[in-house]
Amino acid sequence: MADSLAELQNAIDAFVEERNWAQFHTPKNVAMGIAIEAAEIMEHFLWCSNDESYSLPREKRAEVANEIGDVLIYLLGLGRALDIDIIAAARDKLVQNREKYPVEKAKGRAVKYVDLD
Amino acid sequence: MADSLAELQNAIDAFVEERNWAQFHTPKNVAMGIAIEAAEIMEHFLWCSNDESYSLPREKRAEVANEIGDVLIYLLGLGRALDIDIIAAARDKLVQNREKYPVEKAKGRAVKYVDLD
Amino acid sequence: MADSLAELQNAIDAFVEERNWAQFHTPKNVAMGIAIEAAEIMEHFLWCSNDESYSLPREKRAEVANEIGDVLIYLLGLGRALDIDIIAAARDKLVQNREKYPVEKAKGRAVKYVDLD
Amino acid sequence: MADSLAELQNAIDAFVEERNWAQFHTPKNVAMGIAIEAAEIMEHFLWCSNDESYSLPREKRAEVANEIGDVLIYLLGLGRALDIDIIAAARDKLVQNREKYPVEKAKGRAVKYVDLD
Repeated sequence: MADSLAELQNAIDAFVEERNWAQFHTPKNVAMGIAIEAAEIMEHFLWCSNDESYSLPREKRAEVANEIGDVLIYLLGLGRALDIDIIAAARDKLVQNREKYPVEKAKGRAVKYVDLD
Repeated sequence: MADSLAELQNAIDAFVEERNWAQFHTPKNVAMGIAIEAAEIMEHFLWCSNDESYSLPREKRAEVANEIGDVLIYLLGLGRALDIDIIAAARDKLVQNREKYPVEKAKGRAVKYVDLD
Repeated sequence: MADSLAELQNAIDAFVEERNWAQFHTPKNVAMGIAIEAAEIMEHFLWCSNDESYSLPREKRAEVANEIGDVLIYLLGLGRALDIDIIAAARDKLVQNREKYPVEKAKGRAVKYVDLD
Repeated sequence: MADSLAELQNAIDAFVEERNWAQFHTPKNVAMGIAIEAAEIMEHFLWCSNDESYSLPREKRAEVANEIGDVLIYLLGLGRALDIDIIAAARDKLVQNREKYPVEKAKGRAVKYVDLD
């Protein structure tokens, strides 16, 4: 896994170990945590349009960064619990997506994307 | 950002660019995508106990890895759209969590964790 | 609770009882189920604009109706497990919202809505 | 739709109308709202076991009731926006589930449930 991501993983491991929280960080619970933090990201975009979503007020952007951090922390936690390399998983998924959504069929077509999904 | 994570980001950028999908990948839409894929991770743990969630059948584990990949791909997409370094965001959040959940108070106490959250 | 909602609740109870599934329908699991089905509703609106979300193709609208049904079934399941009347809960929340978002302050202001939330 | 549910729907309509919020309550946004509130329900069950999830402290139970109310309010809002009767949708889904999970196959088998899902 990436150096700096491995460092982050080690820092998270130490944080959990020091608090004896591994007992609570089961795959089921951590999967719930990812979904809860993902919803907290969404909350900042609930009432805006797609265009407006690019121009968050500074303080909201900082909160979104915080929630993104939470999702990545839990995502690494789930990878750790199930011995899954999250970068390798994303690379593999991207390979599958290239086959699933060939450029000539998918270009500029979100509906097609959804239908194929 | 981490080398291999930067490579992944570049591969995702190329994938989106080739399909002219940037127009659909607004922060609002990508935030929805993260939440949708996070729910697909959870689906594999819906009916099991915390203990059972450690021992997924091989094929389910492969599906979970795929969904983890989706979440990371969208998380990087949101970071790109808002110019947020997702690793730096996670590091910052971890610093905040260390202050919020001091070892002496939080050790072995999930309830406290939730209450403080 | 509403007559037809009570009938629905009874039908759900019978469905769960016949399959001996009450053992799996813990508040924790059913709460996950609500979130998973809510994400399946969202999936149909992932790539569209707010305006486009009003005009779903007929078959997608039928699928959304199905996911709405799933969310209501699990919501009633959670209410049953925790002895919470979901209609009374919504009535109470509406009373709180009237106080939280007074017309003169909230009228036509989504941002205010979010900020107050 | 059920009398008391219809009354709730009318109260929600009046609440939204008074604040001129219909402009923000697009199907896409309301679908996001359902998912966000569903995650807030889950948050109360994040670190507990399935057994522990039956015995919430009183104040947490009240918060869960509030989030259940939010989900039902948004669910009715989506039904309104798409002209879908949420009780009829749940009834139809239950009919489908009876066919999909016949008692003799599904009885007491959560895994089967998930696999068939």
